[in-house]
Amino acid sequence: MTNPTAAMLVIGDEILTGRTRDANMHFLAGELTKHGIRLAEVRIVPDVQDRIVAALNALRADHDTVFTSGGIGPTHDDITADAVAAAFGTGIDVRDDARAIMQAYCDSMGRDLNEARLRMARIPDGATLIENPVSAAPGFTLGNVHVMAGVPSIFQAMVAGVLPTLTGGDPLLSQNLTVMRAEGDIANELRRLAERFPDLSIGSYPFVREGAYGANIVIRGTDGARIDAAMTALSALFPEAAA
Amino acid sequence: MTNPTAAMLVIGDEILTGRTRDANMHFLAGELTKHGIRLAEVRIVPDVQDRIVAALNALRADHDTVFTSGGIGPTHDDITADAVAAAFGTGIDVRDDARAIMQAYCDSMGRDLNEARLRMARIPDGATLIENPVSAAPGFTLGNVHVMAGVPSIFQAMVAGVLPTLTGGDPLLSQNLTVMRAEGDIANELRRLAERFPDLSIGSYPFVREGAYGANIVIRGTDGARIDAAMTALSALFPEAAA
Repeated sequence: MTNPTAAMLVIGDEILTGRTRDANMHFLAGELTKHGIRLAEVRIVPDVQDRIVAALNALRADHDTVFTSGGIGPTHDDITADAVAAAFGTGIDVRDDARAIMQAYCDSMGRDLNEARLRMARIPDGATLIENPVSAAPGFTLGNVHVMAGVPSIFQAMVAGVLPTLTGGDPLLSQNLTVMRAEGDIANELRRLAERFPDLSIGSYPFVREGAYGANIVIRGTDGARIDAAMTALSALFPEAAA
Repeated sequence: MTNPTAAMLVIGDEILTGRTRDANMHFLAGELTKHGIRLAEVRIVPDVQDRIVAALNALRADHDTVFTSGGIGPTHDDITADAVAAAFGTGIDVRDDARAIMQAYCDSMGRDLNEARLRMARIPDGATLIENPVSAAPGFTLGNVHVMAGVPSIFQAMVAGVLPTLTGGDPLLSQNLTVMRAEGDIANELRRLAERFPDLSIGSYPFVREGAYGANIVIRGTDGARIDAAMTALSALFPEAAA
């Protein structure tokens, strides 16, 4: 597949300790797939600058686009903006446009634009802002890296703002067939089918449900007619299965 | 914190396309934390051998232990065992002990130990087997890498088998206080608290709930008395909050 590739960097101790179950990765994966961008790698790292810098520099070199999630709030453990600036070797400071956004929001909410909130107006040199329609504090884009909040409602709003600016590929299409047989009984047929359709991705995802073995067979690609043809062949192999 | 560190490598297109929401990472994170092992990094890569090999070699060099999830079934897209062998530069073939396990299971289920199922008895040279009490096909341990199934019920059973064999550290303890105030209003107090307790990790995780702003403040460490002391100080700062 020649679609553009993206990577995601999730920043946050709370995911790695098991306290919070990540929701942003699953959301972003679905949105990118619809947009024809292939999510090719995800990394999750703790709130440690060296670890963020190393992961970010690896991902932005390997992929067309990188999305980060988390660590852009006002507290001492929010170090993502500084880490991104360090990764790019650029300066970072409170910027007038970001400060104005924060000031207007604080005024409207009757809040004080204190030192902590001003931290959220610190933007690496050369970055453009990503709008935050939920709580004002902006994300930003620097090079091919989009830096976004970890709170899911804000993350999702920022993705909605960024995605239309990206060049997508043909949408990645998929069809699914659930076969209530053990994978070991259908693997040879699937392998032959995959050989007949080398332009498609044919995945088998097994499950155990109330003691019964089954597998979801997912056929993916960008050519709907080819996927239809492969699904027809697949359904003929397993006529008892349900799409 | 000097606890041993672990990394996790999730292998599977189904996570990256957004079709499936990963459950194993969240489970493993919680189990490791209880066992005093710090999950320090997670990577998610597609079913592509080069990508698996590169990620695995990076993670096993950087961390005491690595857990992988996914890609050890009987179908053509299950390439994890071969990728692990390639990462270690060792051979891989059907092994007698693994074949005997598969044969006994197939006999008991009235199934044929066909070519596809025999693939699940392919074990890299020098590995030890990890028991699969759900569907027999074993995982394996090679060096500091534990290779486990992606089906959550099997993954969880394998983790239960492997964890007691690992050297843990002092359990990682945590306490939580939910403060219904915007992070920007409490950030300065939290920073000072973090400076008073440099041996603890003090994290702030904001949320928006029905239009109201709040944050969960999580204090983590291995010394329960120190965490108690920090919680007492935290509660005094925000007497209206609920633990």
